[in-house]
Amino acid sequence: MDAALESLTAALRRFAAERDWDQFHSPKNLAAALTVEAAELLEQFQWLTEEQSRNLAADKRIAVGHELADVFLYLLQMADKLQIDLVAAAQQKLELNASKYPVAQARGSSRKYSEL
Amino acid sequence: MDAALESLTAALRRFAAERDWDQFHSPKNLAAALTVEAAELLEQFQWLTEEQSRNLAADKRIAVGHELADVFLYLLQMADKLQIDLVAAAQQKLELNASKYPVAQARGSSRKYSEL
Amino acid sequence: MDAALESLTAALRRFAAERDWDQFHSPKNLAAALTVEAAELLEQFQWLTEEQSRNLAADKRIAVGHELADVFLYLLQMADKLQIDLVAAAQQKLELNASKYPVAQARGSSRKYSEL
Amino acid sequence: MDAALESLTAALRRFAAERDWDQFHSPKNLAAALTVEAAELLEQFQWLTEEQSRNLAADKRIAVGHELADVFLYLLQMADKLQIDLVAAAQQKLELNASKYPVAQARGSSRKYSEL
Repeated sequence: MDAALESLTAALRRFAAERDWDQFHSPKNLAAALTVEAAELLEQFQWLTEEQSRNLAADKRIAVGHELADVFLYLLQMADKLQIDLVAAAQQKLELNASKYPVAQARGSSRKYSEL
Repeated sequence: MDAALESLTAALRRFAAERDWDQFHSPKNLAAALTVEAAELLEQFQWLTEEQSRNLAADKRIAVGHELADVFLYLLQMADKLQIDLVAAAQQKLELNASKYPVAQARGSSRKYSEL
Repeated sequence: MDAALESLTAALRRFAAERDWDQFHSPKNLAAALTVEAAELLEQFQWLTEEQSRNLAADKRIAVGHELADVFLYLLQMADKLQIDLVAAAQQKLELNASKYPVAQARGSSRKYSEL
Repeated sequence: MDAALESLTAALRRFAAERDWDQFHSPKNLAAALTVEAAELLEQFQWLTEEQSRNLAADKRIAVGHELADVFLYLLQMADKLQIDLVAAAQQKLELNASKYPVAQARGSSRKYSEL
């Protein structure tokens, strides 16, 4: 696995072990916690226009960074528990998506993901 | 930034550019899409017991890997659009969490995140 | 439509009109806000066991009630904007579910919703 | 409780009892399922502009109605399990919101919910 992700994963293991939190960190609970953090990220954008979301104020951008980090930390913990290599899984999924959304049909279509 | 994440990010840029999808990929829309993918991950676990979630069947584990990958791909795209270094943001957040949940008070408590 | 829901819907219309919030209340934004509130509801349960969730302390039950109410208020606003009768839609969906999950096959199976 | 909601709640109890699904319907699991359905509702809107979301095509509006119904059905089941009167809880929450967002300060501000 990637060195930076390996190092973050090791730090997360120590963090949970020191607090005896592994008992709460079933994959089921981590999936719920990850979804809660994703929604906190979405909350930062819910009343903004798309244009405003492309031009965040400095303090908002920092708040968004913290939420992205929270999602990432739970993602790493889930991957660790389930022994899934996140980078390899992402590369495979990107290849799957390339065959699912061929350039010719998908180009410029907002009907992309769900309705092609 | 980390080399593996840099490479995935570059692949995602090409993927979106080839399909002319940047018009849909405002940070607001990406945050919604990331939340939708997080919920698809949660769906894999919603009727399992915690114990079952710790012992996934092989096909279920593959399905979960695809959902983790989907969340990761949107996370990378958001970080790219907002010029946020995911690994650095995660390291900072982990340090913040360490001072927010000191070992002595947090140890073994299920009241951890929201109510300490 | 049902009298109690009609009355709540009218109160929500006044609430938004007095604050000039209709400009923010596109169905897209309301769907995001509803999802954020659903995740806040989930957050109340994320580290509890199922057993603990069946036996909530009094203060937790009140907090959960507020989150249920938030989801319901956005649901009513979306139904109002899109002129959908929630009660009629729920009755129809329940009939659809009855044919989708026949008693004989669905009985006692945790593989119910997604995999039957 | 309201007659229409009482009747839907009774139908949902029969539905679960006939399938022996109460074992899966802990408040924790229902909160996860409700969040998953909320995200499926959001998915309908994720690549639409706000303007497009205000003018849904007929088939899209039907799909959205089904998702609203799914959220409502889980909301009713949670309220039933926790013995919470949804209509009364919503009325109370609306009063709380009225004092939290006074017309004078909240008027026309997109900074409303989180930052006022």
